[in-house]
Amino acid sequence: MLLKEMLKINVENCANFVSFNDIQSFSPAVLHANEILENKTGLGKDYLGWLHLPSSIPEDLIDQIQFAAEKMAEKSEVVVVVGIGGSYLGARAVIDALSDNFHYLKPKENRVTPIVVYAGNNLGEDYHYDLLKALDKYDYSIIVISKSGTTTEPAIGFRLLKNHIEAKYSVPDARSRIIAITDKSKGALRKVAGNERYKTFVIPDDVGGRYSVLTPVGLMPIAAAGINIRQFINGAVEMEKFLSAQTDLFANPANLYAATRNALYRKGGVIEILATYTPSLNYLIEWWKQLYGESEGKEHKGIFPAGVTFTTDLHSMGQLVQEGARNIFETVIKVETSNSTLLIPESSDNADDLNYLAGKKMSYVNEKALEGTLMAHVDGGVPNIVITIPELNARYLGQMVYFFEKACAVSGYLLGVNPFNQPGVEAYKKNMFRLLGKK
Amino acid sequence: MLLKEMLKINVENCANFVSFNDIQSFSPAVLHANEILENKTGLGKDYLGWLHLPSSIPEDLIDQIQFAAEKMAEKSEVVVVVGIGGSYLGARAVIDALSDNFHYLKPKENRVTPIVVYAGNNLGEDYHYDLLKALDKYDYSIIVISKSGTTTEPAIGFRLLKNHIEAKYSVPDARSRIIAITDKSKGALRKVAGNERYKTFVIPDDVGGRYSVLTPVGLMPIAAAGINIRQFINGAVEMEKFLSAQTDLFANPANLYAATRNALYRKGGVIEILATYTPSLNYLIEWWKQLYGESEGKEHKGIFPAGVTFTTDLHSMGQLVQEGARNIFETVIKVETSNSTLLIPESSDNADDLNYLAGKKMSYVNEKALEGTLMAHVDGGVPNIVITIPELNARYLGQMVYFFEKACAVSGYLLGVNPFNQPGVEAYKKNMFRLLGKK
Repeated sequence: MLLKEMLKINVENCANFVSFNDIQSFSPAVLHANEILENKTGLGKDYLGWLHLPSSIPEDLIDQIQFAAEKMAEKSEVVVVVGIGGSYLGARAVIDALSDNFHYLKPKENRVTPIVVYAGNNLGEDYHYDLLKALDKYDYSIIVISKSGTTTEPAIGFRLLKNHIEAKYSVPDARSRIIAITDKSKGALRKVAGNERYKTFVIPDDVGGRYSVLTPVGLMPIAAAGINIRQFINGAVEMEKFLSAQTDLFANPANLYAATRNALYRKGGVIEILATYTPSLNYLIEWWKQLYGESEGKEHKGIFPAGVTFTTDLHSMGQLVQEGARNIFETVIKVETSNSTLLIPESSDNADDLNYLAGKKMSYVNEKALEGTLMAHVDGGVPNIVITIPELNARYLGQMVYFFEKACAVSGYLLGVNPFNQPGVEAYKKNMFRLLGKK
Repeated sequence: MLLKEMLKINVENCANFVSFNDIQSFSPAVLHANEILENKTGLGKDYLGWLHLPSSIPEDLIDQIQFAAEKMAEKSEVVVVVGIGGSYLGARAVIDALSDNFHYLKPKENRVTPIVVYAGNNLGEDYHYDLLKALDKYDYSIIVISKSGTTTEPAIGFRLLKNHIEAKYSVPDARSRIIAITDKSKGALRKVAGNERYKTFVIPDDVGGRYSVLTPVGLMPIAAAGINIRQFINGAVEMEKFLSAQTDLFANPANLYAATRNALYRKGGVIEILATYTPSLNYLIEWWKQLYGESEGKEHKGIFPAGVTFTTDLHSMGQLVQEGARNIFETVIKVETSNSTLLIPESSDNADDLNYLAGKKMSYVNEKALEGTLMAHVDGGVPNIVITIPELNARYLGQMVYFFEKACAVSGYLLGVNPFNQPGVEAYKKNMFRLLGKK
C-alpha cells in the first residue's frame, strides 16, 4: 500500500495560530484516547462497534446487500430511502458524491441506476405530498431504516409510503419492493417486517446512528444507487489498518486532525467550517456536521460545525470568513483530480478576458482558487487544515468516512466528553409528545 | 391592510437572555439607522437603491420580464441560470420555496413550467460536465447574470454554455434562447449581449448583489420558473410601506429583529442559526447567510450565520443546539399553514404507536415539533426569535425578503459597519489570478 494512495492531512497552515508544541502536547491524551478505544474502557464503550467494523464485515453480508440492491434496482426507477439523522446522512453523502451531478435530469432510457430520494427525514406536509404525487408516475421501491421503528418522522413517512405502494401495486408486490433495516429482534419495524415478510438487514447494537454508514444502514442505499460497496468498504479497511499502525501523532491523520482542532479550539476557534470545492460533497459535509456536532456538542462544550461549498460560498460567506470575527478555523477537503475533462474554450472576441485560461481544465482553475483562498484566509487570520484525496471514488470516500469517524472519537475524548451519546436529542421530543397528547 | 396578513416577529423567548430594556436601549440607534438610510447619509450610501425599490419598479418592466419569461418557458424544458452569489441566491430561494418539491421528477407531459438549474456558481469540472451532458437531451435556454461579465465562475460557465447552445441549435436560434442581466452600459457581458443581440435587462448601479432579488437579477429567473412576480413584488411593497410607517421599535419587525440580534450578540451570541421547518426554504437560508454574513462579517466583527432545517437537523445538529457551547441564538421561520393536505393514516396493527395521530395533518405534527423544540432550546439556554408568515406564497416571500433586507441594513449600522460593501471578497481573487498567471 503506497502512501500516495492514502488520504492525507496537512496542518502547516495552522502554524501562525497554534505551535507544533501546542499540537504535540496532545500526544499523551491522544495515545490514551486510542487505548481506551481499543480496550473499550472509555465513555460510551458500548458503542464501539464501528471501530473495527470495516475489516469485519462478512463477505456474505456484502453479497446479500449487493444482490438485494440489484434486484431492487432492476424493477425501480426511483428508490425512496426513509430515515432521519444517521439513518440517511451517510448514505446520502456517498450517493451524492459518487453520482452524476444531474442524474435526475437523465431521460429514463439513459438512466442505468435508480434516482434516490429521501422521505421521513422531515415533517414537511408539502414535501411528502409532492413526493407521493411524483411517485404515482414511477416504478419505485422503499428502503426504510429505523432502529426502533417509532421515531416520529420516519414512522409517519413510512405509514404514508406503505399505503401508497400497496395501493399502487398489490400488497404482495409491495412487500417485494420494501427492505427494512432495523434492530435484529426488537422494535416496531422489526415486528412489521416480520408480519409482512419484508427482506431485512440488521443494525448492530453497538454502532450509533452517526457511525453507521458502513453497516447496512449506509451500505444498502449506497448499493441500490449502483455504487460499488466493496470498493467503499475496502477504502475504509485501508484507513482502519493505516490508523491502527501509526502511533506517531504527526504520521496519523486522524490523531493529527483531532489534536489540531482541539488546539485551535483552546485558542478560541469555536467554529469550524468544513469547505469543499466539489459541489457533490455537500452532503458529506452534512454527514460530518452530525458526526462532530452530535459527538462533541454537549456539557456546554464543543466546536460549532458549519459547512461551505467553495467557490460558490466565497460569494456569500467569503467576506465573513476573510474579515469577520476571528473565532473560525477552516478545514478544506481537496480532491486532486476531477473524474471528467472539460476544457475552457477559446472565445473569438475575448470580451470576458478569459482567453489566458483557454485549453485549461476547469479543475485547474478550481485548484488555483483553492490555493489562493487558503492563502487569503490564513493571511486574514483563519487557520487552515487541508485533507486531500486523489480523486472522488468509492475507495477514497471509504477512507475519508473512516478517517472522520476515528478522528471524531479521539477528538471527543480530548474534549472530555462521551463522543457516543446524544442525551440532548430527547428534549424536543418530550415536549412534542406532550403537545401532541401522546399517552 | 390587516395586521394578521403581515409577517410577524416574536422576541418573547429571548426574555431570559436579554431584557426588554436591553432591546429598548437600541431605540435611538435604530431611529438613527433608519434616518441615515432614508436620507442616504450613512456608510455605503451609494448602494441604497433597494430601499424603495419594491414601490418603484415600473409596471412596464414587470410586463417585459413576464413576457420574456413566458416566451422562454414556452420553448424550454430547462432554464439554466448562470450567476454566483447574489446573482442566483435570491432567485433560487424564491424558486425553491414556491415550486413543487419534486418538480424535477414530474414527467415531461406533467410539467407546465421549466426545470431551473444553476451553473457558473462553482468551478466543479464534473458538475459542469454532467450538466452539459444532461442538456444534450433537453430544449433549454439560458439566463446569464453578471454585472461585469468578468467574474471568473459565471464567465467560464457562460463560455461553456454558449458554445453548447450554439452547437445544439444554430447561432441565431441560440441568441433567442439567451437573456443577459447586466450593467446598463459597461462591461464584458453588456458588450457580448450587444454584439449577439441578446435580450437584456439592467442591474441598477445602486443595488448590491445580495440586495438584488427584486431587480431583474431575481425577477427574471423567478418569472421563468412560472412564479407570479407581481404578487412577490406586492408583498415586498406591503412590507416596505409597513416598515416605513412603524416608528415604535417593538411594532416594527425589522427594527426589532435588528435590535434583538445585536442585544444577543453583545451577550455572547456569536452564532445565529436560522431554522426552517419547511424543507423548501433551504435556499432562503442560503440567501440569508449571504445577506447577513457579507453585510456584517467585517472589521473582525459580526454574527456567524448558520442554517438548519428542522426537524431533519434535530437529528444531527440538535444535540449541539440543545447542550453545546452557549454561544448560539436561534431564529425560527414559522409557516402557519401548509399548501397541501396530507393526513396521517390509521394503521391496523399500530406497531409504531402512531394511531393517536391518525387523521391529523402532517403539518400539525410539524407545528408541535416546532413549539416543543422552541421550548426545549429556550430551557437549554438558546434564545429564540420567531418570524411567522401565514403561508408559503409569492406575496409572503416578498414580505419576508424585504423584511430581512431592511433589518440587515439596520443591524449592520447598529454593529457599526458598512452593511453595503464586501472588501474581503477580493482577497482570494487576487491570489487566484496571480496563481493563474493573469496579466
